[in-house]
Amino acid sequence: MTQYIGVKELGQLVGTMGPRRFLRRLVDYLAEDFSRWETFDKVPRVASHSPIGVIELMPTSDGSLYSFKYVNGHPGNPKQGKLTVTAFGVLSDVATGYPLLISEMTLLTALRTAATSAYAAKLLARSESRVMALIGAGAQSEFQTLAFQELLGIREIVVFDPDPAAVEKYMGNAAAFGVAMRAASSAAEAVSDADIVTVCTAVKGRQAIISRDMLKPGVHINAIGGDCPGKTELNRDVLDSAEVFVEFAPQTRIEGEIQQMGAEFGVTELWEVETGRKAGRTNAGAVTVFDSVGFAIEDFSALRLVHDLMEGRGKRLDLVPDLDDPKNLYGALLGGVEMGMRVA
Amino acid sequence: MTQYIGVKELGQLVGTMGPRRFLRRLVDYLAEDFSRWETFDKVPRVASHSPIGVIELMPTSDGSLYSFKYVNGHPGNPKQGKLTVTAFGVLSDVATGYPLLISEMTLLTALRTAATSAYAAKLLARSESRVMALIGAGAQSEFQTLAFQELLGIREIVVFDPDPAAVEKYMGNAAAFGVAMRAASSAAEAVSDADIVTVCTAVKGRQAIISRDMLKPGVHINAIGGDCPGKTELNRDVLDSAEVFVEFAPQTRIEGEIQQMGAEFGVTELWEVETGRKAGRTNAGAVTVFDSVGFAIEDFSALRLVHDLMEGRGKRLDLVPDLDDPKNLYGALLGGVEMGMRVA
Repeated sequence: MTQYIGVKELGQLVGTMGPRRFLRRLVDYLAEDFSRWETFDKVPRVASHSPIGVIELMPTSDGSLYSFKYVNGHPGNPKQGKLTVTAFGVLSDVATGYPLLISEMTLLTALRTAATSAYAAKLLARSESRVMALIGAGAQSEFQTLAFQELLGIREIVVFDPDPAAVEKYMGNAAAFGVAMRAASSAAEAVSDADIVTVCTAVKGRQAIISRDMLKPGVHINAIGGDCPGKTELNRDVLDSAEVFVEFAPQTRIEGEIQQMGAEFGVTELWEVETGRKAGRTNAGAVTVFDSVGFAIEDFSALRLVHDLMEGRGKRLDLVPDLDDPKNLYGALLGGVEMGMRVA
Repeated sequence: MTQYIGVKELGQLVGTMGPRRFLRRLVDYLAEDFSRWETFDKVPRVASHSPIGVIELMPTSDGSLYSFKYVNGHPGNPKQGKLTVTAFGVLSDVATGYPLLISEMTLLTALRTAATSAYAAKLLARSESRVMALIGAGAQSEFQTLAFQELLGIREIVVFDPDPAAVEKYMGNAAAFGVAMRAASSAAEAVSDADIVTVCTAVKGRQAIISRDMLKPGVHINAIGGDCPGKTELNRDVLDSAEVFVEFAPQTRIEGEIQQMGAEFGVTELWEVETGRKAGRTNAGAVTVFDSVGFAIEDFSALRLVHDLMEGRGKRLDLVPDLDDPKNLYGALLGGVEMGMRVA
């Protein structure tokens, strides 16, 4: 039987242990998987585009476990009360090919995106960072806040979103977090004093929300929203003068902020910093950028954590037949129906 | 909510309506989808190989519905009481990206493979075909028998399998089908009198189970088992002298019987016969071969049929969140947990 973790079960799991503890555990799993990055299958996501959206499959494997995530992106969905992005995923046993776990991943992806941001910032940001600018108060904003408060020691959030309703929603949700918050009236005002800048807007097209002249020396930029071809949030002068870090360069050059730069633009992959193969931040005054687009290995880490935490719990699905004689599929599942008997 | 059809529900559905009616409906769906072949996304399956097996994802879309199948192949599984091949699949709404249906596909793939064989034979075999040789009495054998009896008018089966236990299992299951059956002591004996030859062995490597000199003029060969690189069942002299039909040539040239032939070897795709764009069998004396490897569009047809037949029934899964405010993911799923409240 395959374990099933729906929205309800995952909400209960995270709610019961607390999102901070969940994020902390997830960062541990990410560090473990990034440190053995070279053992993973890395293939491009498989996308099916339509005029109004995209459906993608994101598989990977470490040779012992296999995972894939199904994820859609449909900007028109909120107009009909649906989510722009939803996801679910499967974790399988490579030894048998049998699925072990099927899990909702809409909430889980929000958590893993925030955990990956915090994981990258732990590698790259100055350890004395305390003030974070949050540009965009959408679906990721609370998750980012919790992750940076818990894992980076952020004490103050300066939020900017052109939509006052989004800021209000964010402040309502984050009121219980115990972090100081204030709203800024522009992106420039929000980032002026920030040690870390998290940019996660849903604005389409080539934006230049953050430019070099807005930034303090030594700032770390956590760039979430430039995550598909044609969508960027940073002015290229930020990238030109920064040390830029990515998950998987071939994918980020297509989907990330660095789609603005040439193919020769120098970047470092996070796993190279994790393993000590390359340097992270080179000096306290440098601007570092994590150009995040999301990668299958992060979903693998998240599913692996959920599988470990939920061991033995959750519902069970009969997704795969359990037969006495694996060579007798017909007899086991349909035997007798030709004689007028119905199967159980 | 996403509809869930497990092994139990699918067995009940097929058992209640009867596998013959199910196969007949599925052939109708296949004909419909093959007739609009050009509207489908056609991408290579995405395979993750390990030393002992493979896990594959097979996506496709017609622009209105999207489907993918997850399928494994692990030859060592039966030693531990597991199936060599298992599968499940998802059908989604392209307009929203939301999954409509998740279904077991181990049984469903067996049914769709047999339905596709019968569909191809209806296009290619002589209409007076009554005797079928069945080479290989494994998991596909009963499904093939039912499909050809129901849809081609086959009245007699001559079965050959070197494993007497497999023949006994097959004859036990097929005893109620109302088709005449006898066992042959060799493949040559089995095919000597056959109008249709179905070859579905699990034997690895380059085999030559069927050669040209064994065959009557006008025979149709339904070649199921040559379905991955390095695995073939027909001697190449059969292919050299036959009219060869495939599902999707780029895939079949890698996985099918025609991997033995050069890249220029001429084949016709089934949809070209369905739409009248190319001829099927050119004369009553020709040998026709359907070199079957299985393609994503057939799984699409099968999922579409199950979705139509099970409308409103089956279990429901909370695979995707249902939120009052789709922009407030955190508040809806985790709101309150920071204040010590647990989510529902």
